[in-house]
Amino acid sequence: MKSDLLSNIKNPSDLRLLEEKQLPQVAQELRDFIIDIVSVKEGHLGASLGVVELTIALHYVFNTPEDLLVWDVGHQAYGHKILTERRENFDTNRQLGGISGFPKRSESVYDTFGVGHSSTSISAALGMAIASKLKGDLKKEHVAVIGDASIASGMAFEGLNHAGVTDANILVILNDNAIGIDPSVGALKQYLTAVKNGKNPRQNNIIKSLNFDYSGPIDGHDFPSLIKELKRLKKTQGPKFLHIVTTKGKGLQQAEENQVKYHAPGKFDASTGEIHLKSEENLPPKYQDVFGLTILDLAKKNKKIIGITPAMPSGSSLKFMMDEIPDRAFDVGIAEQHAVTLAAGMATQGMIVYCNIYSTFLQRAYDQVIHDVALQNLPVIFCLDRAGLVGEDGATHHGVFDIAYLRSIPNMMIYAPINEIALQNILYTVQTELNHPIAIRYPRGRGVISDWEVKNFGHYKFIEIGKANCLKNGTKTAILSTGTIGNNVTLALQECANSETIAHYDFPFIKPLDVQLLHDILSNFEDIITIEDGVVNGGFGSAVLEFAASHNYKSNIKNLGVPDHFIEHGTVDQLQQICKIDVKSLINLFSNGAK
Amino acid sequence: MKSDLLSNIKNPSDLRLLEEKQLPQVAQELRDFIIDIVSVKEGHLGASLGVVELTIALHYVFNTPEDLLVWDVGHQAYGHKILTERRENFDTNRQLGGISGFPKRSESVYDTFGVGHSSTSISAALGMAIASKLKGDLKKEHVAVIGDASIASGMAFEGLNHAGVTDANILVILNDNAIGIDPSVGALKQYLTAVKNGKNPRQNNIIKSLNFDYSGPIDGHDFPSLIKELKRLKKTQGPKFLHIVTTKGKGLQQAEENQVKYHAPGKFDASTGEIHLKSEENLPPKYQDVFGLTILDLAKKNKKIIGITPAMPSGSSLKFMMDEIPDRAFDVGIAEQHAVTLAAGMATQGMIVYCNIYSTFLQRAYDQVIHDVALQNLPVIFCLDRAGLVGEDGATHHGVFDIAYLRSIPNMMIYAPINEIALQNILYTVQTELNHPIAIRYPRGRGVISDWEVKNFGHYKFIEIGKANCLKNGTKTAILSTGTIGNNVTLALQECANSETIAHYDFPFIKPLDVQLLHDILSNFEDIITIEDGVVNGGFGSAVLEFAASHNYKSNIKNLGVPDHFIEHGTVDQLQQICKIDVKSLINLFSNGAK
Repeated sequence: MKSDLLSNIKNPSDLRLLEEKQLPQVAQELRDFIIDIVSVKEGHLGASLGVVELTIALHYVFNTPEDLLVWDVGHQAYGHKILTERRENFDTNRQLGGISGFPKRSESVYDTFGVGHSSTSISAALGMAIASKLKGDLKKEHVAVIGDASIASGMAFEGLNHAGVTDANILVILNDNAIGIDPSVGALKQYLTAVKNGKNPRQNNIIKSLNFDYSGPIDGHDFPSLIKELKRLKKTQGPKFLHIVTTKGKGLQQAEENQVKYHAPGKFDASTGEIHLKSEENLPPKYQDVFGLTILDLAKKNKKIIGITPAMPSGSSLKFMMDEIPDRAFDVGIAEQHAVTLAAGMATQGMIVYCNIYSTFLQRAYDQVIHDVALQNLPVIFCLDRAGLVGEDGATHHGVFDIAYLRSIPNMMIYAPINEIALQNILYTVQTELNHPIAIRYPRGRGVISDWEVKNFGHYKFIEIGKANCLKNGTKTAILSTGTIGNNVTLALQECANSETIAHYDFPFIKPLDVQLLHDILSNFEDIITIEDGVVNGGFGSAVLEFAASHNYKSNIKNLGVPDHFIEHGTVDQLQQICKIDVKSLINLFSNGAK
Repeated sequence: MKSDLLSNIKNPSDLRLLEEKQLPQVAQELRDFIIDIVSVKEGHLGASLGVVELTIALHYVFNTPEDLLVWDVGHQAYGHKILTERRENFDTNRQLGGISGFPKRSESVYDTFGVGHSSTSISAALGMAIASKLKGDLKKEHVAVIGDASIASGMAFEGLNHAGVTDANILVILNDNAIGIDPSVGALKQYLTAVKNGKNPRQNNIIKSLNFDYSGPIDGHDFPSLIKELKRLKKTQGPKFLHIVTTKGKGLQQAEENQVKYHAPGKFDASTGEIHLKSEENLPPKYQDVFGLTILDLAKKNKKIIGITPAMPSGSSLKFMMDEIPDRAFDVGIAEQHAVTLAAGMATQGMIVYCNIYSTFLQRAYDQVIHDVALQNLPVIFCLDRAGLVGEDGATHHGVFDIAYLRSIPNMMIYAPINEIALQNILYTVQTELNHPIAIRYPRGRGVISDWEVKNFGHYKFIEIGKANCLKNGTKTAILSTGTIGNNVTLALQECANSETIAHYDFPFIKPLDVQLLHDILSNFEDIITIEDGVVNGGFGSAVLEFAASHNYKSNIKNLGVPDHFIEHGTVDQLQQICKIDVKSLINLFSNGAK
């Protein structure tokens, strides 16, 4: 790749030295740079390609970092990072010790607000704008760039609703490409599409009704329009809203044509766009596919089964059911709160609802889990995808709090399968006579049984509620694991010399605990080690401590898991090492007397 | 009160036997009945008076309980309860063992969905409507009645956004009275007001843009209009939206004129409406007023201080600051998610933000606390009002989960003052050099120091971060309390014979714990009892267990607090008895050797 302009842009002040007519070349170089790096290093591609012109135009017109720029979600911020002093280490993107895949305050003064979860940008930018006004800084601009999928989330509406009654200097830019990770859904999306097609007069639109100075829709890839409008808006005080239309994946044909796949395509050929397919033969299945295929199979046989996902049909694999049984499988958009209470409403009418939400995103619906589901003891089945450490997405996305925040809720059951067979069996089991809500947490990525699909798919077995399992006998130390981290224990025990003294118990039910087995273990073992891929504070190990204390057991109990600080991005194995729950750390621990 | 019609209405089927022209008399009788009971028994008045005609019209036109009726929040459901088989025990409203102040599924088949927190009704009703359609029941109507304050919350928008792309048989009725508990705020409210004033043509309104069959605004106190329109809507399939205009407190002059005070006025004269004032002389101050007066005093001296409340200016007493320093005190409406991220945005610009949210409502912003505040380690000050057991509002409103759900979050500090002096001093302390977010949790109602205001107001003292206090020495048993429940311990120790053996420590900092003092206590005491007015699972006591386990202490540790089931409504003292943390239970426990 030949770069003439980009390599001389260290930060936006260099960009602002260029003439406007040079910007298309910068855009071409920036696009090529992103494609070249992401094709090799992986990452989020389509979103950043779609906002190349917008990114350049914003840094060209506004005086960043004095003017404050907030990128909603942040998938689209690669161009921003490259233009703001991170071009040279952009190839460390999403790696341990490298730059984050999302804007992050500690990384750069240009990253004004850390993002990762959607729909926060308007609230954050409004807070900054009000603060600037109070400090007497009336010229500073505060820009929130938000996509059409994110703006449909309730939190974004709350921000708009407040901003519209202030005189704060906030500019909301709607990057309307009709897609989030999956295609956007909902009535607002239909409305925006009508606006783009000229069917809604500007004078009466929703945004204008909320007191914004609305302009658009304009072509977000056209520099002259963008620059002209941004310059006008820069001179306009108060809440402003610019509606731009872009194409996700712009500039790479395959990415434009297959936007879901090229959201984060893995490695691909930078010149042809072709994705490097890995052989999947003999690999264990993804937990996501185990969920998706199983709920489809169950739903075919049980008409009461419903599936819900808030905007993650591909990521969760609920798309299998959406394709075959569309009237009972719902993508409700980025609306976790609504998803949970919708499920509760359906459950009151006797439906069996599998509500699939990433662990980290269920944080968005915590109150609905407590107030609408658990308090009414409605048997909603929460399928918590991407529980535990998620790897390269990093601190914003780890699903490590769920055990702690769910187990304090009365009526709630929590199950963490150790492998894909257990996941399938619990999905099968809970469709009947549950009488309580349950959260089933499982990790991102592949399971552990390579010939699972052939041998086991659909060979359902009932799981006894509240039952734990002895995986290995021992004499002195008992390891109590919950979920797939138990496989690390198994591997470690195979490698350690004194393993005959160490017993291993799988506690898939974090709630209710298998109290009979716990009595046995606490009566018979001197040393207990609990292990989970979630926070130690308040987690599964803490539940074991509570049980032991309430029955006056005096065993030594050590709790392993995620310590009390945020864990950054890296491979799952690297992050497990940081938490000392990787196989090697466990071998060391077990070999040193397991104390 | 003479009742001719109401006393013959056991349930809506009796109501439906009446002629339409008799309904105004039913309304008069129902209004009188509500006023008579609430004037003596207390409760939420204004909201129910405002929807008397709507309540009657809904049960008259629709075939409840076959048609499903969801009341948002539920403050307005007294008339509904009285017309649906609960007239005779309505005088037990909000009492232990009596009927709930909110709709509740276990109480009546007419209460289709339990409510208490706002903005859930559209999602719940939509879930029911989709379920009905899947079951082949195409005639059933599903009605959500939601106020203009609640519909401005993000969750309601999520529900509308989904409903608008379904053909579900849902009717959303907007009860527009321009007030929640306090007057409504926000751009949507301004828009609705313009609609009411005829300034927005129906053809282009926001709701219609979201694909609803919109009708209104109509007078919600006029039976002919209501009945006619509801009958039309009953025959209309798909998502429908009726905008009605009502007056909160309708029919009681003082309640109409002073809507905030008469939301829940306490005891009053049923004929004159005059509120029975209690003498407040020599009573300890309310924690709410300690917060409100203190932040006002601090903000006068420190220009960086900002106050935020999501829709609770009166309840939280932030109104004191809103009245005197309106540019730095914000009511953002029922928008907890936005409130928290707005605070985070302000904190990035160096403002000192006191974000006051009821403990139970912070559940709505759990993700924002983790993702936008704690992950970025922004020093936002969360003031968690109504923490612990709240009394008559019951299970939906108890603030008992906060310790458990907050202490697992890295960077978060948690402080629970034992009394109003400690509350004032921590509010003073945290304005400087905090470097971390902090949650300050305090209960609903009055403190314990009757001459506090005169003697102590403004006599600020710095509180050492992470420091616990020995309140009483002892030899054998150590009681570790956090927060105001510590006053129960103090009272119990004064009454119990063997108190010389019992030490009492106040741990206002739940995080960070005073580890030095904990080492001392765990080294020197055989028996430890922790006590908190929050859930035992994962709470303060659990943190003590984790510390003890990680340092191999073998003391007997007993955790007192809220057990693992939902606690219903009653007086705080009654509910503390249920949890065995009232003074009497503690005396018994301590007298029996404190094991």
